[in-house]
Amino acid sequence: METTNSIGTYLIEKLYQNGAHHVFGVPGDFVLGFNKLLEDSQIEFINTCDEQGAGFAADAYARLKGLGAVCITYSVGGLKIANTTAQAFAEKSPVVVISGSPGTNERIKNPLLHHKIRNFDTQYNIFKELTVASTVLDNPKTAFEEIDRVLAAAKRYKRPVYIEIPRDMVNKPGNIDYSLDLQPQVSNPEALAEVLREAANKINAAKQPVILAGVEMHRFGLQEELLKLVEKTNIPIAETLLGKSTISEMHPNYIGIYEGAMGNKFTREYVESSDCLIMLGTFLSDVNLGIFTANLEPKYSIYVTSEKTSVGFHSYDEVYLKDFVLGSLKANIHPRELNVPNDFKPPRDFSVISGKPITIARLFECLNSFLSKDTIVIADVGDALFAGSELFVYDKTRFLSPAYYASLGFAVPASIGAQFANSSVRPLVLVGDGAFQMTGMELSTIVRYGLNPIVIVLNNGGYGTERPILDGAFNDILLWKYSRIPEVLGAGLGFDIQTEDELETALLQSQTHSESFCILDIHLDPEDTSPALKRLSRALGERVQN
Amino acid sequence: METTNSIGTYLIEKLYQNGAHHVFGVPGDFVLGFNKLLEDSQIEFINTCDEQGAGFAADAYARLKGLGAVCITYSVGGLKIANTTAQAFAEKSPVVVISGSPGTNERIKNPLLHHKIRNFDTQYNIFKELTVASTVLDNPKTAFEEIDRVLAAAKRYKRPVYIEIPRDMVNKPGNIDYSLDLQPQVSNPEALAEVLREAANKINAAKQPVILAGVEMHRFGLQEELLKLVEKTNIPIAETLLGKSTISEMHPNYIGIYEGAMGNKFTREYVESSDCLIMLGTFLSDVNLGIFTANLEPKYSIYVTSEKTSVGFHSYDEVYLKDFVLGSLKANIHPRELNVPNDFKPPRDFSVISGKPITIARLFECLNSFLSKDTIVIADVGDALFAGSELFVYDKTRFLSPAYYASLGFAVPASIGAQFANSSVRPLVLVGDGAFQMTGMELSTIVRYGLNPIVIVLNNGGYGTERPILDGAFNDILLWKYSRIPEVLGAGLGFDIQTEDELETALLQSQTHSESFCILDIHLDPEDTSPALKRLSRALGERVQN
Repeated sequence: METTNSIGTYLIEKLYQNGAHHVFGVPGDFVLGFNKLLEDSQIEFINTCDEQGAGFAADAYARLKGLGAVCITYSVGGLKIANTTAQAFAEKSPVVVISGSPGTNERIKNPLLHHKIRNFDTQYNIFKELTVASTVLDNPKTAFEEIDRVLAAAKRYKRPVYIEIPRDMVNKPGNIDYSLDLQPQVSNPEALAEVLREAANKINAAKQPVILAGVEMHRFGLQEELLKLVEKTNIPIAETLLGKSTISEMHPNYIGIYEGAMGNKFTREYVESSDCLIMLGTFLSDVNLGIFTANLEPKYSIYVTSEKTSVGFHSYDEVYLKDFVLGSLKANIHPRELNVPNDFKPPRDFSVISGKPITIARLFECLNSFLSKDTIVIADVGDALFAGSELFVYDKTRFLSPAYYASLGFAVPASIGAQFANSSVRPLVLVGDGAFQMTGMELSTIVRYGLNPIVIVLNNGGYGTERPILDGAFNDILLWKYSRIPEVLGAGLGFDIQTEDELETALLQSQTHSESFCILDIHLDPEDTSPALKRLSRALGERVQN
Repeated sequence: METTNSIGTYLIEKLYQNGAHHVFGVPGDFVLGFNKLLEDSQIEFINTCDEQGAGFAADAYARLKGLGAVCITYSVGGLKIANTTAQAFAEKSPVVVISGSPGTNERIKNPLLHHKIRNFDTQYNIFKELTVASTVLDNPKTAFEEIDRVLAAAKRYKRPVYIEIPRDMVNKPGNIDYSLDLQPQVSNPEALAEVLREAANKINAAKQPVILAGVEMHRFGLQEELLKLVEKTNIPIAETLLGKSTISEMHPNYIGIYEGAMGNKFTREYVESSDCLIMLGTFLSDVNLGIFTANLEPKYSIYVTSEKTSVGFHSYDEVYLKDFVLGSLKANIHPRELNVPNDFKPPRDFSVISGKPITIARLFECLNSFLSKDTIVIADVGDALFAGSELFVYDKTRFLSPAYYASLGFAVPASIGAQFANSSVRPLVLVGDGAFQMTGMELSTIVRYGLNPIVIVLNNGGYGTERPILDGAFNDILLWKYSRIPEVLGAGLGFDIQTEDELETALLQSQTHSESFCILDIHLDPEDTSPALKRLSRALGERVQN
């Protein structure tokens, strides 16, 4: 059995070199050989309960480390992560999907092998829809080159890729003797110079310029450069919901999350009255724009992403986000006085009213005072996200959420990926009860690997985001006793919380209980939603009926 | 708002007429309008915790009722059931996937709406790979016709179909004024007559004919006709694993599950020494054929399915399973003496050895004595299935399992679908601990709707099927205290079982505890696997390495 320079070994080396030091997944017979190679390598394989959990964990890992990987078996594993891969595609998270598959020698005569769907290519065809590059490593002559090509695409486009290894190829030697002409994405220098001149003039001439930073600042690792730009120019900075935490939100220039009619009034008015809106790496999605309630004037905007650059109504070809941001640090943009009200800062002290039933608003005030430099907030879809958007986090990329694709069930498994990506943080997981019932039992994985998130379950007995749109029994869910889950898993600390003092006690105990997870079952009135969610639901409701 | 004769109402009527009296799913904003229509209709909507559970439940329902339906939202719901739909495709289960989606009026200018992946057709493109017919109901003029066309395909091919409803189409009136030319699948009468003559002659001339009945006997509802054929001719009948329970396994002509080297010796020798093997509705898959260890002589075979008919080495076009089975009841096949040993019957009395640790073999002996006419056995993948194959069930279609596609996590949610399809049965769920950790918390749905399966968790601390192939830490899972789950869900009865007497006590208590589910945590030695699994794993192991 040749393993040195084998296709499997080469893939593992390349994953490790690119930052994927952990791979998440569930084994299966078509991928066992590769699992064994992984076990013997410097990469740690993390077993989740269900493949869905592995997919979300890998996505979170990718958002923090620049590359994530999920390794599953053919069809019964692969198709379980179609949804998590779709989310990584939609929200630009570079996840490598590695799937085992039947050996090339088993496919002759097209037999009915277990896990086969329509034909042996069905899974591959599906993942072509969900990735920016894909390959089946069925030829040792080209396998190494294919691995390089596909991983390069993940890193360039910050989107998922698909690598399928027929099980008889894992230990086959590959051919290292090739040259792959991977052209880096570099802006046209003259076009870049022109747009930088135009942007600098526009910014310098403006009375109220503002930066609106988006998700690509995280994905392209431009947080430090963004901070330099802010400090060099003193321009205030707002963020989109998906882009939240591009810089520390304790920074004096930070003015909040802009999300159209969903967001807070101060941020909205400041951004919408700007005469020079500098949008950097921002997705113009419905959620980011408050279901298109945003009122942003194109004529006042400078819009730069990895895909498109425009100033006012004209566009520049071949000008890319990273080059623009780096260039702007050297451009002739004048520093200015900071004139935003300094009272836009979090309430850091929280005084408990003993015996008072807890509300969403008071819960998030309390959480704001509880955050520290070591906290990474991971918000699931629903009020966990909308109320969570008003937390002030202490450092860059300390807030993760699926704020565009919006797949319920992200947060608990994402906390696994986040903590493996950065072992110095402790996740604060915000999750609705509906989302928790989808993937919350990945707490099992958390116990197995000794992780310690604090999980806040917003328990309002159903899909709270949907009730204001259109209600019915279909929005109800069973009431679980979430605080009893530690008894099933044999570890963890559970709290059943009705009042403000119970909340404070539980949070203090959770801080000291760092050896395993804590779960706080926060009983909320089903009618109690955050102001942001109320505004969003109203906007969505208008679109349900024709 | 026009709802009479609306597209949504029409779809609901057609689902109900075709037997889908329950629809399984999870709501979401793009499907809420249709959910509301469902709630106001005679169909009952069953909320599961996660869409995966709904997909498996609908699959089980379809296997019992001839049509199942799952209703989910766009992308974040739809892609979560890519895998369950693939299983329905692979194992021929007619599941209707109904997905809400953005309104046609919202898609103009291709905005970044939440849940969108690459473009608005991404989900549709994926489901085209997983279904036999698919449609997007974006045109009121053709919507009714499209619904009829797609549902007809599900019923004809017994495979899943996909119906997407943009949310602004739900309440739009459709156009009833059309004619759809749906040709029924009818055999060529002359070809049918010829194959029936040839088959009858071959059978009559044979010394040891045997029927090998497969999954299509369930899917095409031919169980009663099969029983008549057996009783008319007195030919012994074996079944494939996927086809298990085509007739009562207490029938004197039943000789067991044929699965090559995996199966029991008597059945294997009887089938392989047959000089006339009548395969009816049988998939020649690797699992059914004991990973191709089967030794069946084509020259002795009569092979009839909905797709292909052959005798010896020649094939007949335009001869279909149903016509062949009905025709065979009138064909000149002579009755014969039944000469199979009558000791091939289940051990119906089980004597407990007090304090003796329970083993897989003894567990299934005990379960065999516990089965009754009201039991439907639902086996998940792994030893739950392989050991379960040797249970003797009392009636037709009283054993469900994903014995070809083999997706872990089927059994618990499938029991939901099974009990809604037939409220007179009580499911006995056989599930490994690995599979349970994927979908077992759908017990929540079971509690919510007052169902009462008895769930047997084969707890051996990991993926027992994989250990004999290639072992490593990746085959381990966390030990849950499964018997404590009732404390989280607020209902159900849990048992922690180490010995034979504890097993017997728990089963007796479960029989009387019919108001909710029971869960039996059966602690097994990780090395203890059924003989069938040992044989299978050995066969699979030879194929992992090249």
